[in-house]
Amino acid sequence: MTQPSDKALVPFVSVDHMMQLIHRIGIGPMLQGLAEYIEADFRRWELFDKTPRIASHSAEGVIELMPTSDGEVYGFKYVNGHPKNTREGLQTVTAFGLLADVGNGYPVLLSEMTILTALRTAATSAMVAKHLAPKGADTMAMIGNGAQSEFQSLAMKAICGLTTVRLYDTDPAATRKCAANLAGHGLTVVSCTTPEEAIEGAQILTTCTADKQYATILTDNMVGSGVHINAIGGDCPGKTELAPAILHRSDIFVEFPPQTRIEGEIQQLDADHPVTELWQVMTGAAPGRVSDRQITLFDSVGFAIEDFSALRYVRDQLADTGLYHALDLLADPDDPRDLFGMLQRAAP
Amino acid sequence: MTQPSDKALVPFVSVDHMMQLIHRIGIGPMLQGLAEYIEADFRRWELFDKTPRIASHSAEGVIELMPTSDGEVYGFKYVNGHPKNTREGLQTVTAFGLLADVGNGYPVLLSEMTILTALRTAATSAMVAKHLAPKGADTMAMIGNGAQSEFQSLAMKAICGLTTVRLYDTDPAATRKCAANLAGHGLTVVSCTTPEEAIEGAQILTTCTADKQYATILTDNMVGSGVHINAIGGDCPGKTELAPAILHRSDIFVEFPPQTRIEGEIQQLDADHPVTELWQVMTGAAPGRVSDRQITLFDSVGFAIEDFSALRYVRDQLADTGLYHALDLLADPDDPRDLFGMLQRAAP
Repeated sequence: MTQPSDKALVPFVSVDHMMQLIHRIGIGPMLQGLAEYIEADFRRWELFDKTPRIASHSAEGVIELMPTSDGEVYGFKYVNGHPKNTREGLQTVTAFGLLADVGNGYPVLLSEMTILTALRTAATSAMVAKHLAPKGADTMAMIGNGAQSEFQSLAMKAICGLTTVRLYDTDPAATRKCAANLAGHGLTVVSCTTPEEAIEGAQILTTCTADKQYATILTDNMVGSGVHINAIGGDCPGKTELAPAILHRSDIFVEFPPQTRIEGEIQQLDADHPVTELWQVMTGAAPGRVSDRQITLFDSVGFAIEDFSALRYVRDQLADTGLYHALDLLADPDDPRDLFGMLQRAAP
Repeated sequence: MTQPSDKALVPFVSVDHMMQLIHRIGIGPMLQGLAEYIEADFRRWELFDKTPRIASHSAEGVIELMPTSDGEVYGFKYVNGHPKNTREGLQTVTAFGLLADVGNGYPVLLSEMTILTALRTAATSAMVAKHLAPKGADTMAMIGNGAQSEFQSLAMKAICGLTTVRLYDTDPAATRKCAANLAGHGLTVVSCTTPEEAIEGAQILTTCTADKQYATILTDNMVGSGVHINAIGGDCPGKTELAPAILHRSDIFVEFPPQTRIEGEIQQLDADHPVTELWQVMTGAAPGRVSDRQITLFDSVGFAIEDFSALRYVRDQLADTGLYHALDLLADPDDPRDLFGMLQRAAP
């Protein structure tokens, strides 16, 4: 049998290898590393090819492709969002991603991204909270205790110095699961029975629920001054978590306005409602938090550049760890014009 | 170690498995099978989600994502086009593709598509020629003897009854390679030293060259009446192969007009120049060839639905052949909300 050339073999990070990688590095240091890569790419935001994700909607959910490029490396993520999946024992969100060499178009990394997306979403939230949360913030309300909740909590600990997380979910079993998983990770975990109880004393309010509908996870009277809201769950048209009155009291920070206006909490506002682009906070071109009394809101929807940063991070770990398979993904005959000859020579 | 669930494992068809599949089925029957799947999908064209491909252009080439969906199955292809790659010993075009279940968003097939794209492009050309070429057409001029040329020739044999192929390339080594590869496949192969010689007596004229520039592979005086032109190589902005005068004398058939007007030969014409959509020929809604004297032109650029059909075909062969690996691509914990618990239990 014809052996594929080196260029034809694409490193593939499976789910198992990703989990081994996280344990090898440690989840705290890995979240810190991811946040550093993401922040570095936010600082060079202007040189990226940016386009809103390409979505294929159906009655049941959405499948999206999220491409970007920095001119040298191209990346994209495949990701679905099917809120009803949970009821069928499936993940709401699964994902995988790819990096390729812009110069010749050959893929250079294929990776699972179901777990990596949870890590990069949490690392992005914490990286943003580091810039926007009130000084000394050490307590977070975690409203929605699903698949993202532990990652959000540990990222806030690793990157922002969080010491206490206060959990609430409409389903107490989800809270028990989250609390059990967080045991032994160095956080004080308080399980709460109402959202009002969860936000007591919290300077960071994180909402991460999965309903595909206009929901009101936080009402206006629940949100005092001097907090940072990290709104994760409102991430597609028709899916929001915050009462509009909260948005009007907040200074709103977003990843990529053309996408957030369609998918984020601000789909409830006028199309010209002022927002600040986060990359400008990172570069110093725009102010972040300017007062202790201010409500800052990160209207998180997830952007392709964060996936790109996460894939770059994973790629940079491969040589040291060897945690990948070589996947026979690309046909690469010795004579590039002789694809047919390669096929013919492979005859049994 | 935690074992992934069945749903987390995605069948993956490697390059080696694809080559084995072709040899198992036979290249002729496989091209026929692909043409049947493609024609079936053209007949139900209207129900597909259609969007022009999403292209990321650079100085060296282009990387594209081509998604589509029939409402039950979603598919996309990753494909690059880097004309300069050949000079570096690399493929101009490499590709892979994926199918997913629209209902839950989980991928159900990952496949190499460098070889499969060559097959589906050839099968589409021959399926179209079956509808448009003059009755009794048995001779093709194959201008450009690169990686696609053998596949084009064998598809025309398997699907249209081609008996003779007349080869021409600016590089005689490419012609020698193509002629050697086609030996023993039941075609009379004539190697020619000029394009004028190649088109002598040919009712089907296929152009498939790779220059990224406005080239003139066929000039107006070379093309007589009563032929079918299968124009493969003009497939991105700035890359065409035919003199505009030929286009003005031809009835032009295209896959998806919004894409072909940007990428095809007709980028040289006014944006409202009349063209016929091929799916309407397949369903009988529009006429195909109406006279023996007519010049029909398939301005081929390749459309996402053809890749979708090809992936459907491959998927339908898997159960019988077993020619795939189960790829650990998706994290799928028993409790979908417990992604972190799955990660934690995988600790060494």
